Parts: sequence; structure tokens; C-alpha cells
Amino acid sequence: MVIDCHGHYTTAPKEVQAFRDAQVAGSDTGAQLKAALAISDDRIRESVQPQLAFQSARGTDVTVFSPRASSMAHHVGDATANRQWARLCNDLVYRVCRLFPTQFVGVCQLPQSVGGSPADCIGELERCVNELAFIGCNLNPDPSGGHWTAPPLTDRAWYPLYEKLVELDVPAMVHVSASCNPNFHATGAHYLNADTTAFMQFLLGDLFRDFPALRVVIPHGGGAVPYHWGRYRGLAQDLKRPPLTDLMRDNVFFDTCVYHSPGIELLLKVVPVDNILFASEMVGAVKGIDPETGHYFDDTKRYVDGVAWMGGADKAKIFESNARRVYPRINSRLPS
Amino acid sequence: MVIDCHGHYTTAPKEVQAFRDAQVAGSDTGAQLKAALAISDDRIRESVQPQLAFQSARGTDVTVFSPRASSMAHHVGDATANRQWARLCNDLVYRVCRLFPTQFVGVCQLPQSVGGSPADCIGELERCVNELAFIGCNLNPDPSGGHWTAPPLTDRAWYPLYEKLVELDVPAMVHVSASCNPNFHATGAHYLNADTTAFMQFLLGDLFRDFPALRVVIPHGGGAVPYHWGRYRGLAQDLKRPPLTDLMRDNVFFDTCVYHSPGIELLLKVVPVDNILFASEMVGAVKGIDPETGHYFDDTKRYVDGVAWMGGADKAKIFESNARRVYPRINSRLPS
Repeated sequence: MVIDCHGHYTTAPKEVQAFRDAQVAGSDTGAQLKAALAISDDRIRESVQPQLAFQSARGTDVTVFSPRASSMAHHVGDATANRQWARLCNDLVYRVCRLFPTQFVGVCQLPQSVGGSPADCIGELERCVNELAFIGCNLNPDPSGGHWTAPPLTDRAWYPLYEKLVELDVPAMVHVSASCNPNFHATGAHYLNADTTAFMQFLLGDLFRDFPALRVVIPHGGGAVPYHWGRYRGLAQDLKRPPLTDLMRDNVFFDTCVYHSPGIELLLKVVPVDNILFASEMVGAVKGIDPETGHYFDDTKRYVDGVAWMGGADKAKIFESNARRVYPRINSRLPS
Repeated sequence: MVIDCHGHYTTAPKEVQAFRDAQVAGSDTGAQLKAALAISDDRIRESVQPQLAFQSARGTDVTVFSPRASSMAHHVGDATANRQWARLCNDLVYRVCRLFPTQFVGVCQLPQSVGGSPADCIGELERCVNELAFIGCNLNPDPSGGHWTAPPLTDRAWYPLYEKLVELDVPAMVHVSASCNPNFHATGAHYLNADTTAFMQFLLGDLFRDFPALRVVIPHGGGAVPYHWGRYRGLAQDLKRPPLTDLMRDNVFFDTCVYHSPGIELLLKVVPVDNILFASEMVGAVKGIDPETGHYFDDTKRYVDGVAWMGGADKAKIFESNARRVYPRINSRLPS
């Protein structure tokens, strides 16, 4: 079985974003909300056909599916608006998962906001896990959208949320949203910077001593970290921090959203195989076909399949069993 | 010949930083300035012995040498203070270069500041190039130290500085300094994020159409870019921007400050060989010995030497001729 642990609902019907646009504009949102809630099952089915076609063509059985990351835009609304927005987006993902129960499992958007408390997110997290059968959440380390005004992820301000994640036995994927800082292109800089930043915060802090059962997924192949694996090993040593393999073992996982063979080769070579989860983030950041290969850039399964020196047992960890370990609630949803 | 294009004077006598500390504290700096200016030639010679020993042991002939990057701290002082600070640091590097003319060539720190104009830097740049025989500068894309309040490097606000760089025929290395944002560890996050950010800015903008002769070096192996080469190729294609090889050809260069063999292998595999400059950034970010190899993490020459599939002619480009092309003023300082 192949589990893609990182997909966003980027093809949602346009009424969804129309609601958010009205909300952000400060308009009366009654009509837009009504339109978004009235989206029919047929239109939901239709909207995920591109995703399903890719899954089928590439051999992915199930996608761990969450609302569009760039649309979370926690920097745009206040706590109340973002709670309503998260709820709407999560409910849409739930509908996808209910219509295609063997092909999608849900992960939720959190109602974060600038200056808001992580504790504000607990209600929506509980609702999604307990009532909608979601198996994880996306946690934005920078709700300011590129100004980085929140405390580091190792700060105690985040602890109430981590306590709930541990209690529910669900992981968080560290995932920023759109950037309102003109220095940072979202998918070309902000996303990767956040991944790199989060890893270094974990390296410096004692978060997993305080939460030994907390699991975090750093997407996009761990940002810059595997490429600079020697730098991080050396920094950990110079700073008298634990070796990277100890830091990561039960707590930190990288996905395989790296869109070329040499990058995937490097990832699989340096990062422990138990800490790598298969993912493609499609339909997502890069949509085109690579003229050098004739295949989609984000068809990451091809790159993993092509790593000749790694055996089938290790690849089965990457494709399936690591995801079952990191997202244990997926097991009740899938054949064993 | 082996040219290391990225070294900082991290072992400067303590009087140098003592001056800056007094300046930042708002104290009268007369005594500290006097002490810094009174540093003897013998103490300068002594201070670079660790660097010279490494160069000798590793087989590096000459280092392109600049003031300590983390101490630039453009976010700390105002324009006047930072001009005095840059001048002092650059003069110290000049003294090193004069004492060891075959082993060091200077690159200058610019007197940037938060909210300052890039045009403010022109005087010190001209002084360093014309009077001190420096061959380039370090340009900080984020003088705010992790708040990213300056415009992107492709913004016209930077153009007066670029005009002067082209006129003087010297390149800029894009290099941030210390971080005052608790989210960003300097060498473990801020440096690499800045490299990644700058590349994406260049990808999106038309800077090199306006300045076809401008050359920029992105250090630390280009941040996350080579690891995510497929992502960037795909983004360039989706955004209808030129292919990466065209973007980089005469204008954008990555150094080899990547501290493990698999990372260097990847860099040399995906990035055009004409756009890679040898560098180690020693004595610098990572000081220890890798227990897996028994050699220093930052002994990057070993990694390049170890790439068996690359021939001597291409390696000579990385070790020497590319640097002579990017930093043409080095040629009058070295045997041809």
C-alpha cells in the first residue's frame, strides 16, 4: 500500500474561496456561506477527479488530505474569522473523505491568528479528530505570514496544543501558509525556510524531552536540512546537542516532496529510513511536466522507485508503515 | 591554484568587538577605538595563524577574506555607527591582506542599517575597492536581522549600489548577519533561509536584464536550492520565467560551503559547473571534526576532491577559474 501523507484540497469549488474573500473584505458573508454550504456531493466528487486520476496513474492508494495550505492565511483574519474559515475548510475535506473513504483521510487546518493563543486551536482540533475522524493537523509556525512574530515552536506558549496532540495521538505537520512579506515567495522560499527554521528550533530545544510522544512532520523534504546534513550534524556537536538521529528518532519526520531524483537520492541516503514518509503534495506547488523526464515534477513516487540501492523492505517503510506509525489513527481506516 | 572565495576574519583580536560593544552600548568609544587601532602587526599575524594552518593543511592557496559576518549586525547600530564599524572592520581585513598578500584578498562589509539607503554604502565600497584593493563586498539582504523589512533584492531601491558594483566590476556575496529574531538561529536557519530567499527573488525578477554585468554569489551552497532543483525548475516553468541555467549563467553563483559529501555530490551534479565557486567559510560556522570521517566538517576541498565522476578540468573551474571570472580584480593580485 502507498500512503501519500501530504495532499491539499487545492481544487475545491470556487464558492469556498469566495466566502473567504467576502469575509476578509468585511462584507456580509451570509450569501457566500450559504453558497459554500450548498455545494453538492456531485460537485465535490467532480472537484477531486484530477487528484484521483493522479493517484490512480501514479499508484498512490490513499492521500492524507488537508485544506489548501496557502489559503489558510492566518495573517488575514482575526481569531473569530479564522475559526469560521477553518471550520468551513475542514468540513469540506471531511466531505471528500466521506465520499471517497478508501482514498482520502483528513488532516485539519487550525484556526490560528496573529497574536492568537495556540490554546484557541484545541476546540477545532478535537472536533476534527473526534467527530470527523481526522488523523492530524497542520501547524503554522508563522501565523503572521512571513514576519515571524510568533515564538519558536519550542516555546512553552505552544505547549497546550502539544498536550492535546499527544492526548489525541495525532501528529502535526509544520506548514506555513501564504506570505504577505514581499521578500518571500510562498512555495519558492517561505515554505522551505519554515521547514529549515523549525528543524533548527527542534535541534536547539528540549521539546521532545517534555513531550516524548509528540510527532511532527516537516514537509518538503525537510527544507534545506538533508542537503546541509553535515552542517546540522556539526552544529549539534558544537552546541552539545544530541545527534540528529536521536533528535529525530520518534519525533521528527521528513516527507518526500522533493521534485527531482538527485534530491530524493540525497534524502534517502542521509536521513534515517524510519523518519521518511512518502508524499507528493499534489495537486500543488509545482504543476508542470519536467521536459527532461517527460513526467510530472511532483510525481515523487517515480523518484523513490528509482533509487536502486534501497531494498523493498525499506521502501515499504517509506510508502506505508512509517505513516501508519506517525498517524496511528489511519490504521482503523485502512485494511491492515 | 585553489581559491577559497568565502572566509571571514572570525579570529580578530578582541579589541575589535570591544569597540563595537561600547559603541552599541552608547558609551564613549574613544578608549576602545584607540585600543583597536593600536593592535600591532604581530598580533594581527598571530590572529590568523589558525586560518593559515588550515589553508596550508587543506591545500588552499588564497582566501577571499571579509569581516566576520555575524558581527556586521546591521540591525544594531544606526547609519553613522555602522559606517564607523564597517570602516574599522574593513581596515583590519586590509591589514591582514597586506601582511599576507599571497594568502588573502579582501572583500568588504557594507555600512548598511535598518531603513538606510543602499546608496549610503557606495562611499565605503569605493574606498575599499579603490584604496584597499578589495575585490568584492558582502551584501546583507536583511539589515533588520531576521525581520525582513527591507525590499527584495530585485527592488529598484538597491539599484544605485548595483550600478556602482558594475562600474567597479566587483561582485556581491549575498550574506546576512546575526539574527535578532528568536525564530532564526543564525548559522542554522537565517543564513540558509536568506540564500534560498535571494535565489527565488532573482528567479522572479528581471534584475539581470537591467544589470547584465552584475554578479552575485549565493553562499552556503545556494541554501536549499540545489536540493530542491526540480522544484525551482518547475516553478520557473510554471511562472514562465527563464530556465535556471539561463538565470544563473553570467550572474548567479553558488559556493561549496556544504559540509558533507552527499551534499557536494548533489551540488556538482545539478548546478552548472561554471556557476560553482570553491569555498569553505572557515574558520566559521561549524568548527568540529566529523566523527564519521575523522576530518573537519568544513574541509570542503576533500568533498570536491572525492567526486570521482568529475574531471580535473571541471574541478579547476570550481577551484580557480570561476573565481577569477567572478572576481576579476583578483587577477592582478595572483600569478596567472
